[in-house]
Amino acid sequence: MSDTREQILEQIKVQGDLVRQLKATKESKEKLPLAPSSEGRAISTSVGQQLKAQQQQQLQEQQQQQQQMHKIDEEVSRLLALKAKLGGDATPANQKFTLKTPKGTRDYAPQQMTLRQGVLDKIVQVFKRHGGEAIDTPVFELKEVLTGKYGEDSKLIYDLKDQGGEILSMRYDLTVPLARYLAMNKISSIKRYHIAKVYRRDNPAMTRGRYREFYQCDFDIAGTYDPMLADAECVKIVAEVLDTLDIGDYVIKLNHRQLLDGMFEACGVPANNFRAICSAVDKLDKSPWADVRKEMVDEKGLDGATADKIGEYVRLSGGAELVEQLLADEKLKAVPNAVKGLEGMQLLLKYCSLFGLEERISFDLSLARGLDYYTGVIYEGVLKAEPSAPASPAKELHNGDQALEQSSTVGSVAGGGRYDNLVGMFDPRGKAVPCVGVSIGVERIFSVLEAKFAASKVKLRTNDVEVYVASAHKGLHEQRLRVLNQLWNAGIKAEHSYKLNPKLLVQLQHCEEHQIPLAIILGDAELAQGIVKLREVTTRQESNVNLADLPNEIRRRLQK
Amino acid sequence: MSDTREQILEQIKVQGDLVRQLKATKESKEKLPLAPSSEGRAISTSVGQQLKAQQQQQLQEQQQQQQQMHKIDEEVSRLLALKAKLGGDATPANQKFTLKTPKGTRDYAPQQMTLRQGVLDKIVQVFKRHGGEAIDTPVFELKEVLTGKYGEDSKLIYDLKDQGGEILSMRYDLTVPLARYLAMNKISSIKRYHIAKVYRRDNPAMTRGRYREFYQCDFDIAGTYDPMLADAECVKIVAEVLDTLDIGDYVIKLNHRQLLDGMFEACGVPANNFRAICSAVDKLDKSPWADVRKEMVDEKGLDGATADKIGEYVRLSGGAELVEQLLADEKLKAVPNAVKGLEGMQLLLKYCSLFGLEERISFDLSLARGLDYYTGVIYEGVLKAEPSAPASPAKELHNGDQALEQSSTVGSVAGGGRYDNLVGMFDPRGKAVPCVGVSIGVERIFSVLEAKFAASKVKLRTNDVEVYVASAHKGLHEQRLRVLNQLWNAGIKAEHSYKLNPKLLVQLQHCEEHQIPLAIILGDAELAQGIVKLREVTTRQESNVNLADLPNEIRRRLQK
Repeated sequence: MSDTREQILEQIKVQGDLVRQLKATKESKEKLPLAPSSEGRAISTSVGQQLKAQQQQQLQEQQQQQQQMHKIDEEVSRLLALKAKLGGDATPANQKFTLKTPKGTRDYAPQQMTLRQGVLDKIVQVFKRHGGEAIDTPVFELKEVLTGKYGEDSKLIYDLKDQGGEILSMRYDLTVPLARYLAMNKISSIKRYHIAKVYRRDNPAMTRGRYREFYQCDFDIAGTYDPMLADAECVKIVAEVLDTLDIGDYVIKLNHRQLLDGMFEACGVPANNFRAICSAVDKLDKSPWADVRKEMVDEKGLDGATADKIGEYVRLSGGAELVEQLLADEKLKAVPNAVKGLEGMQLLLKYCSLFGLEERISFDLSLARGLDYYTGVIYEGVLKAEPSAPASPAKELHNGDQALEQSSTVGSVAGGGRYDNLVGMFDPRGKAVPCVGVSIGVERIFSVLEAKFAASKVKLRTNDVEVYVASAHKGLHEQRLRVLNQLWNAGIKAEHSYKLNPKLLVQLQHCEEHQIPLAIILGDAELAQGIVKLREVTTRQESNVNLADLPNEIRRRLQK
Repeated sequence: MSDTREQILEQIKVQGDLVRQLKATKESKEKLPLAPSSEGRAISTSVGQQLKAQQQQQLQEQQQQQQQMHKIDEEVSRLLALKAKLGGDATPANQKFTLKTPKGTRDYAPQQMTLRQGVLDKIVQVFKRHGGEAIDTPVFELKEVLTGKYGEDSKLIYDLKDQGGEILSMRYDLTVPLARYLAMNKISSIKRYHIAKVYRRDNPAMTRGRYREFYQCDFDIAGTYDPMLADAECVKIVAEVLDTLDIGDYVIKLNHRQLLDGMFEACGVPANNFRAICSAVDKLDKSPWADVRKEMVDEKGLDGATADKIGEYVRLSGGAELVEQLLADEKLKAVPNAVKGLEGMQLLLKYCSLFGLEERISFDLSLARGLDYYTGVIYEGVLKAEPSAPASPAKELHNGDQALEQSSTVGSVAGGGRYDNLVGMFDPRGKAVPCVGVSIGVERIFSVLEAKFAASKVKLRTNDVEVYVASAHKGLHEQRLRVLNQLWNAGIKAEHSYKLNPKLLVQLQHCEEHQIPLAIILGDAELAQGIVKLREVTTRQESNVNLADLPNEIRRRLQK
């Protein structure tokens, strides 16, 4: 029977493939006639002629389709006949497909969850220290909400299938949903944090923490306020987060979009090329200047001399003295945007220094940030390479100058900036709500910490069980349930074996493996006297405790 | 200029539609040749002939395609020319679409988040008390993972658009992803909890807490254990969760799938109709027996007399005495499945009574649970209607008998059961991992609590700020930043106004509105002496504190 069954299943598979294939052919043809006949009327004559040709072709295809329909019906009935042979039970046989999570995603096992929860808790603590309130938004939005917000990256948005009803897309970040939320609810000021997964159909690089589904931890300050007070606090938050996570030395790079625009203007970049050139500059953290210059000149049509002028500026980085130097720069002085950007930087650096951040920040003219919507200050928290770890070969080959040497870093783990126009894009009257915010790239941080833990061989506890309730001999499972009930009702975290008569050794081993601090051992002799043995798992010391006093005694032991 | 711009935008739209349409036609044709030529060889001759005909057709189409390609290029260049007229800035004008979240979804505002976080924290506490470890899985799965798991409900699954690559669907629950996770990682025992959003394209009823995106809080025990020990603990967990959330009186209904099957057999239902009749019984909590009987007879082809026999059983509910009564029932006694199910119930009721649950549970033969995958015990936690609240009209009209009267309840807020075969469906060799679990329906719980809070008019705090740093007069913002820095570095939650010179009254009002317990008031006179004023917001009492001692003094005040 087993062989016959397998043979039939194989036949079903072959037949099924055939039917699917015939259907696919049929369906892909069926798509043809629709588009031209329903939408084609209003368009130009030359296209009209093509449509006519298509309609003739369509007729031929319909005839052929009818033939195929018969074929499909035939094959389907063969398939059903085969299925009937297998009997009424139509539950699928065990799946043949590879058991995996979707590309670029991963499960979190308990160890990873413990690590992740620890990181997120610390981040939330920082956000709350600065008065953040939590909000949450749906994981998908109307597609229109995301349209026109991400420039080139729009192609990375996951769309949902049109199953009737609204057209939806998975959120790409937490910033656009925040802007939609503020405009929709007419909120003009908030300090909100939002920790949630976002989705990007990007090329995953999972060992480096680049996923298609990943967490973002965002903190944003929305409202019309005096310059740089909220902006500086966001920089402070980046520093506090990276300090509290203790993942190594870092630098927070700062720049200003207005200064970048002013600098481009001063160098002679046409205004309509600012964003394109800006996105070329953004690549300086990964590519050498020569490549970026090539992109500017060859792809974006910039004059070579103009590119070289930009090249002079973007290798500059420093502190307040650099701002002074640039304020005195003849070319920049003449451009109002550059002066405004520099004055903004001056104020930001002053506030950052009042926040004790002087050693942590670097005004860096090569920082550009990818997204279009920034309008003011931009910043990025970057981990420096561990002294022991060699820089990546690509970096070593190219970092001929100091500005690029600085970027031989593990990678960006936080970033953000000011975006004053995004909320206005959603408001029917265009009412703007100025915003500044920061997003913590926790996946990279998880990666760094996971590598650290793997190296340290420390075993993280993945549960919080305080007491294990064990049987010393057979026939005690009902007594265990009574004791467990007493402990749970007292709020004590307790577990036991789900076997009626587990071996004592196995139970005690479980405690040691899972780092459970205390074990209660039940035995008839003790129970007759109303007592149980309480064992400290690490020291293996045992003492008798009165059953009635058990919860209190356990709390006493745990407090030690 | 504005009119011209709109005219051009309209032209762009028309041209764009044209190009997209031409492209779509082209692409749908391009799909054709691939399927037959790469896969078609091995199949029967009649299909082979069709393929030949297709190939000829394909040639014709290629020629036509080339013509179309030219047309597309032409139209694209016209489009680009139009765009150029508008200048480089292509940011869209303000959106015309309605600002909303997708149907059946909602944002959580800070107040709601505070409530939600409170509920989830309490639930996690219970899960951890029972030794639960957390896992997480991606929000979408390969579509194949979900296929064949949900019976009729499969139509409610959200699919992602095929954008190339894998075919994905949003998770429908957390149980199937758990089974996939266990099989994929060859895990044979775990106590895991998982709190995450799931997605169902169902008809939303948002006031009653039925959404298309909603949280599930699942706790499951996987492993091969002795009967009912893990099952009874899951029932205990439901009781602990509902107790700790304090949302009103509840009952946990219990039943057993094996008993249901045995009862169907005893009544004369054909074996291949068990699941269909079971899903009819499942509707008894919403519909009167007459309707359910009609479904059984008219839709599911059951004999009227058989249906009536079922009707006798499903109105029974009670405790251990009912199990005794049914074990003595002539019809049931003869059916091994019924006897096994009843013996299981007997054991479960005994363990539940050791867990102190006697007053909370009801063995209820009308409980069936919708999903196909249950194989043993099933249970459901149901809120009883508040004494003051009238039962819904539908319920009042129909509850002629006692069994139905019991179901005049606010609704199911937790449910689960044993599913021993689901993991095996994913294992290549069909290796089973028996599981039992429970899912807490938190959205309904949120709804109940939100209504309670709205009625109570208590204002929940949505941030945790401990100290507000205020200026008594102009020109103190830098001093504020210094003090804030001191507080933040000491781990104290503090905020201030982002205005340079806010009015003192406005600052103090902010503290009262946001229930911030303490305020620090800076003034030149005090600062000159190294002191600040510390104000308790509710009592409005003020006292001078040394700046150096500020963090300690604040901690002292907060501990009070």
